[in-house]
Amino acid sequence: MNEAGDSPVTALRRGGGLAAWRQIADALAGEIRSGALARGAQLPAESALATRFGVNRHTVRRALGVLAEDGLVRTTQGKGSFVEQGPIPYPIGPRTRFSEIVTRTGREAWGDLIAAATVPADAGWAEALGIAPGAPILELHTVHRADGAPISTARTCLPLPRFSGFDAAYAASGSITRAYAGYGVADYTRLSTRIGARPADAEEAARLDIAPGRSLIVLSSVNVDGDGQRIQATRSLFAADRVELVVE
Amino acid sequence: MNEAGDSPVTALRRGGGLAAWRQIADALAGEIRSGALARGAQLPAESALATRFGVNRHTVRRALGVLAEDGLVRTTQGKGSFVEQGPIPYPIGPRTRFSEIVTRTGREAWGDLIAAATVPADAGWAEALGIAPGAPILELHTVHRADGAPISTARTCLPLPRFSGFDAAYAASGSITRAYAGYGVADYTRLSTRIGARPADAEEAARLDIAPGRSLIVLSSVNVDGDGQRIQATRSLFAADRVELVVE
Repeated sequence: MNEAGDSPVTALRRGGGLAAWRQIADALAGEIRSGALARGAQLPAESALATRFGVNRHTVRRALGVLAEDGLVRTTQGKGSFVEQGPIPYPIGPRTRFSEIVTRTGREAWGDLIAAATVPADAGWAEALGIAPGAPILELHTVHRADGAPISTARTCLPLPRFSGFDAAYAASGSITRAYAGYGVADYTRLSTRIGARPADAEEAARLDIAPGRSLIVLSSVNVDGDGQRIQATRSLFAADRVELVVE
Repeated sequence: MNEAGDSPVTALRRGGGLAAWRQIADALAGEIRSGALARGAQLPAESALATRFGVNRHTVRRALGVLAEDGLVRTTQGKGSFVEQGPIPYPIGPRTRFSEIVTRTGREAWGDLIAAATVPADAGWAEALGIAPGAPILELHTVHRADGAPISTARTCLPLPRFSGFDAAYAASGSITRAYAGYGVADYTRLSTRIGARPADAEEAARLDIAPGRSLIVLSSVNVDGDGQRIQATRSLFAADRVELVVE
């Protein structure tokens, strides 16, 4: 990665009809495509880029916004901007496990619990879980990260009373698989997966550190325990720039 | 569906801060969501909508553009605008067949051959087909339709000389499966499928009658014949508003 101090001031063409933010975005995109800015690398701070290109920080921020809209760069508030890593191969099958898949790529996997609530199951969740509509379920809202980068955000529903307290177990372990261990679920398998895609709205984009309008892969799945009991229904939104699903 | 003649002129709120095209888009979106405009139904012609809302056709066109950007309406040049049908369930597995899947939903399936060329295989296609880089392949560019609505566009590569003339067989039959029959391939199976998603660019959007920026599901697959020989590598772009992939 170029350290800001090593980079010469890059001359922008003034009055050439191409706005400064566009020229900066093109220059940085070129460095990403050539590998001069490596995948996963942190970009220099906005102030350093402003000095390099001889512009103000507002212009730099607009250029970084363009790179995010093109799926080349991820900006995390308070942490800075990073070159997108390229998609993680994500096998979809009977034994799909987020933690295992991410760990296998040499990255650290963690799930954050954003919110949890006990609610009556609506018709859709009840059907997915094979329970009566109105029966109580535990609903978890989570964000799943690989080396800190958000990969997906999910709404997971589990039947009650069987999984009472699961939210605390999840918050402590950062993994559905690890949390199940405390409930006597040593193994579980994927019953079915449905896959769609749509543009991210502003709130989803903010949660996943992507630009609004980038594509989400929408994954609806049901898991069963070793006895074939439905123990989990999940609707996950994956940042499509960060995964490639694999079906074999 | 409302016929234009049955609809009263709908009063727009002038000077209320909400542009006429936005009010028209909201009114039509409401009719789609309520079912007054049924899924798959053709919308009244632009001139009829202009009369109904008391605006010019440019304003109607802008409102229809908003509905396309939201994935509610498909506009096909020369044919008019239609309410999106909702996604076709599309099973991904060893025996995935576009024609069978679409026909099962009661719709007519057809594939149009857009272009064909004999080219040397680049490294990616060669690996997918298990042949030497530079070996000749037949490359087909196709668009796949359900009742006329474009569902996907694909680039398909087949090894030569085995599939010499396959482009003519495909153009005549409108189906990969039917074209294979003439080459002694009675059955074939899917070796692997990789699934990604990204926003459509202007050219892809035009080919699929979607708004630029709507999500594409990018499906990369390899098929083998009964002897396990690789006979086809395909990269398909699905209009994500029109399919939901199912993995079981």
